[in-house]
Amino acid sequence: MNLLDNIDDPADVRKLARHQLTPLAHELRNYLLDSVSKTGGHLSSNLGTVELTVALHYVFNTPQDRIVWDVGHQTYTHKILTGRRKQMHTLRQLDGISGFPRRVESEYDTFGTAHSSTSISAALGMAQAAKIKGEHRHAIAVIGDGSMTAGMAFEALNNAGVQEDVNLLVILNDNDMSISPPVGALNRYLARLMSGQFYAAAKNVGKSVLPGPVLELAKRFEEHAKGMVVPATMFEEFGFNYIGPIDGHDLDSLIPTLENIKKLKGPQFLHVVTKKGQGYKLAEAEPVLYHGTPKFNPAEGIKPGPAGKKSYTDVFGDWLCDMAKADKRLVGITPAMREGSGMVRFEQEQPDRYFDVGIAEQHAVTFGAGLACEGMKPVVAIYSTFLQRAYDQLIHDVALQNLDVTFALDRAGLVGADGATHAGNYDLAYLRCIPNMVVMAASDENECRRMLTTGYQYNGPAAIRYPRGAGIGAAIDPALTAIEIGKGEIKRQGQKIAILAFGSLVAPSVAAGEQLNATVANMRFVKPLDVELVKRLAEQHDCLVTVEEGCVMGGAGAAVAEALAAEGIVKPLLMLGLPDKFIDHGDPAKLLAGVGLDANGIAASIKARFLGEEPRLVVNNG
Amino acid sequence: MNLLDNIDDPADVRKLARHQLTPLAHELRNYLLDSVSKTGGHLSSNLGTVELTVALHYVFNTPQDRIVWDVGHQTYTHKILTGRRKQMHTLRQLDGISGFPRRVESEYDTFGTAHSSTSISAALGMAQAAKIKGEHRHAIAVIGDGSMTAGMAFEALNNAGVQEDVNLLVILNDNDMSISPPVGALNRYLARLMSGQFYAAAKNVGKSVLPGPVLELAKRFEEHAKGMVVPATMFEEFGFNYIGPIDGHDLDSLIPTLENIKKLKGPQFLHVVTKKGQGYKLAEAEPVLYHGTPKFNPAEGIKPGPAGKKSYTDVFGDWLCDMAKADKRLVGITPAMREGSGMVRFEQEQPDRYFDVGIAEQHAVTFGAGLACEGMKPVVAIYSTFLQRAYDQLIHDVALQNLDVTFALDRAGLVGADGATHAGNYDLAYLRCIPNMVVMAASDENECRRMLTTGYQYNGPAAIRYPRGAGIGAAIDPALTAIEIGKGEIKRQGQKIAILAFGSLVAPSVAAGEQLNATVANMRFVKPLDVELVKRLAEQHDCLVTVEEGCVMGGAGAAVAEALAAEGIVKPLLMLGLPDKFIDHGDPAKLLAGVGLDANGIAASIKARFLGEEPRLVVNNG
Repeated sequence: MNLLDNIDDPADVRKLARHQLTPLAHELRNYLLDSVSKTGGHLSSNLGTVELTVALHYVFNTPQDRIVWDVGHQTYTHKILTGRRKQMHTLRQLDGISGFPRRVESEYDTFGTAHSSTSISAALGMAQAAKIKGEHRHAIAVIGDGSMTAGMAFEALNNAGVQEDVNLLVILNDNDMSISPPVGALNRYLARLMSGQFYAAAKNVGKSVLPGPVLELAKRFEEHAKGMVVPATMFEEFGFNYIGPIDGHDLDSLIPTLENIKKLKGPQFLHVVTKKGQGYKLAEAEPVLYHGTPKFNPAEGIKPGPAGKKSYTDVFGDWLCDMAKADKRLVGITPAMREGSGMVRFEQEQPDRYFDVGIAEQHAVTFGAGLACEGMKPVVAIYSTFLQRAYDQLIHDVALQNLDVTFALDRAGLVGADGATHAGNYDLAYLRCIPNMVVMAASDENECRRMLTTGYQYNGPAAIRYPRGAGIGAAIDPALTAIEIGKGEIKRQGQKIAILAFGSLVAPSVAAGEQLNATVANMRFVKPLDVELVKRLAEQHDCLVTVEEGCVMGGAGAAVAEALAAEGIVKPLLMLGLPDKFIDHGDPAKLLAGVGLDANGIAASIKARFLGEEPRLVVNNG
Repeated sequence: MNLLDNIDDPADVRKLARHQLTPLAHELRNYLLDSVSKTGGHLSSNLGTVELTVALHYVFNTPQDRIVWDVGHQTYTHKILTGRRKQMHTLRQLDGISGFPRRVESEYDTFGTAHSSTSISAALGMAQAAKIKGEHRHAIAVIGDGSMTAGMAFEALNNAGVQEDVNLLVILNDNDMSISPPVGALNRYLARLMSGQFYAAAKNVGKSVLPGPVLELAKRFEEHAKGMVVPATMFEEFGFNYIGPIDGHDLDSLIPTLENIKKLKGPQFLHVVTKKGQGYKLAEAEPVLYHGTPKFNPAEGIKPGPAGKKSYTDVFGDWLCDMAKADKRLVGITPAMREGSGMVRFEQEQPDRYFDVGIAEQHAVTFGAGLACEGMKPVVAIYSTFLQRAYDQLIHDVALQNLDVTFALDRAGLVGADGATHAGNYDLAYLRCIPNMVVMAASDENECRRMLTTGYQYNGPAAIRYPRGAGIGAAIDPALTAIEIGKGEIKRQGQKIAILAFGSLVAPSVAAGEQLNATVANMRFVKPLDVELVKRLAEQHDCLVTVEEGCVMGGAGAAVAEALAAEGIVKPLLMLGLPDKFIDHGDPAKLLAGVGLDANGIAASIKARFLGEEPRLVVNNG
């Protein structure tokens, strides 16, 4: 008898007898493993939250009660239980369901998440709204210990603790693991909480110090001390009622505890301990490897694939190690993305100059600024989308003081399976408007390496953006050679039409140029723009086309338009780039083709505008 | 005998005998009051940190040891002691010294600050650099209790607590007051620390519970308990050695304590209690009033000036109260800027719908997103420059989900005396590239009110920007009337030249238009841009000019350039706006004139480009 087959809704879970939940969890875990191994996706975190998810939907009245899943990559069980079981095979694929919760996907997805540490703020907003409207419902934030290190989570705790009459439950899912192993004082603190050290210490002191006859008295003291002296936990300092830690895989702990909490008023904090990868031995042993998986055979586990092309991440990681050997002033900083940013080897080789600061983008950048003040040369490795978290620090602490911090921006442009939340589409626009910045976009692996060297050697703030995944397979010169700042290059000389291409779209632009016999320039620098090259191309051609894997609005093409205006050049201009909308998950190549940014799409747009053919794509600038 | 006359450098302070420091502090306080009352500036915070500043420079070997002042508006004593006494009369004025520390101003200003909560990150970077380089120096962050509520400070504490061998000292300057009165759980916690409740509780429990004979035993228990059970303070949980609280106006406490701390290794945390406005009775009584002061007579105190024109802040505050009465779904959110954002009356009238979340811009925005999910209509009142702190939350939590959050952006454009750190120059560029956003710029007070209504009624994310201070004095219609989204208006019909003006620069553009008989449009919307109007103006004129009080790069003018390109319109275009550099403090009107954005400057730039006259200004787009 398969329980899962009959569950199309959490109400179906709530119809089950309590004793059926353990077999249900077992089925879910098998379903997850089978499903994720076929589609790829997040595995460890989902195996770790099966019981917690079942318990939450069993005890609380979803969707009337709101669950906000922090980061949201642990929501596959939630998706399976909320009517999306049969769509799991479409996970993270074009037109399929998302790997994260999305409000447009289900009424059970109360808040879209993907970047970390937003859940407490959002759930508090929901709880406060219920209070204002006089509606009785619970708002629940489920947040991992990694996410708890971000400042935003503390801001929310600090504010929630004084909103005393809201039905807010924060569940700390403590698995001692974000993507990279945990760092920071908070994690150390949680480990102490988990080991029960506080409580044990309180008991043992009494027993060891006091002789038999006054032990009873001491116990009375202890009772008082527990209530009045021992501030218990940091979370209680913040005004929460702290419960835990409890075993997050034990439904006999989870369900009665949640049922009790449901009756309490005011901000509640439940500390749940889970294990990433729970129930699948290979993932338990290597939770980082099984954090985000490709397709694999569950019986065999993930096997190393054939050595493919180097990814841009690898190019960065190699460069970082090489430059660190050449220059002892280099320090590498990551906000909890050691693996994703390619810094595993760097940490091994330069442990004293490697800083994983936790999920703390704001601190990462200003910590770098402080290092730069003292003559160090910090390299902050950060995804384009996560630099949005440190925008003010980049402006106020780095650029305004013209400090020598190098930003290595991975995952620029469309990122594929992670979708709109992770897209690095705005960096060119939000960076180039900031004074003192140098902004580069790499068109191939070797140029990426040279741009990293260029940005590093430049005595001021510089950002190098490169896309997710592999490049075109360019041979990499092992030297550490810079390129001239503010200079582009001609990739192809043609006639009439000049294509000014940036970064990852130089290659398809060259292919489009071949079709049209157009001139193609690799502009290299978004800032400072090669104005001389723009002028020369404008003089020698009838019309100009800009191409970038970033938003058209305010992006590299806009920089060209501004340069033309500033130079008093009047020339037909076509600006190609990402349209003004959020683009969902899917295969990056297909997504790019879908918005007309593959070679054929670029050529078609140019023909339609300048050669009188039908438009293949209308970029909406409105 | 005047001690201060002979102090040109902290080394001169260190030459004084210990007993001379109290009279020095007295002189400094008089000097501050005299100086600030003549120039205007921050008063309360500076009166509160006189002794702390003296003690730090006396005990530590500045500038070899590094002091980072969080926010930095409390650094006037520091400036006076570090060679800038005689420039205090130029404070915050054009070409004068800044109201904040600046690296370019003095070697004693180790890190430029102004936005809050950066100091621990920066000082940690400096301390870590000293460690890597093998240099022995102290790095000291001085941070207020208000600044401590920002997530960034927690991120830094979390990271610092595990960097065990750095010479970092964090001094919490606890005056129970940021600009607005304090909010949040942390402040409540600090108040308990300050009252010594922990420690007293530990003692009293013992005494009340235990009878005489075992009191001695209980004391032994207490000793153990202090060391082993009681986790003491949150800061110790983070790995710091916590010392305090001590009286920050008592040099006999401060100096020996700092001397002792200087000998300790690893992260130290000193909790100092001070009083804002200390020594000037009027400021002690009304620290908010004396936070930032105009010029005033110290004998009389600040007197209410004659009722002048309404500031844009007042316009917003009135609108908020009116709209809240009309719509019970409205909630108002401020990140610790109740006074600055004009929300004092709103709090009084709607206490249940008013949320001061502390200095927590990230949380403010996502808390608003959570409220919006439940059908509330949050208005986040935030300075343009501080929205940079919540950029990712605006993108990822609000815009991506198309949630109905209204952003009231005060202090857009140049802000005057606060200088480059507070300038709201980038909002148009960084907002308009985000899908789903509606972005408006108000050209007068009445339009500001109408735009607030428009943004509020719009069922999605909208931002309304308005400048610091008073507008042109437009009569305000008390109705709550929206304007049509995406529609500009013609202010003046002329010939040949069309000026497309945005927000605060509509008025000078109209004046420039009069000089040149140019058409002038008030574009109103940066997004969605009124493309029909752009097309019509392009058809009817020989050339177009865009004018905005924001960065040219990626700003409203770039939106016009993009629209022209998208429409295939080829037309001479001049883009006027703020140049690509950080602009220092000074009178806003003079600053605008200095970059050619007053009426004469706009006219001169247009003449130079299109009418063959000499350029008055070259906007560098490079």
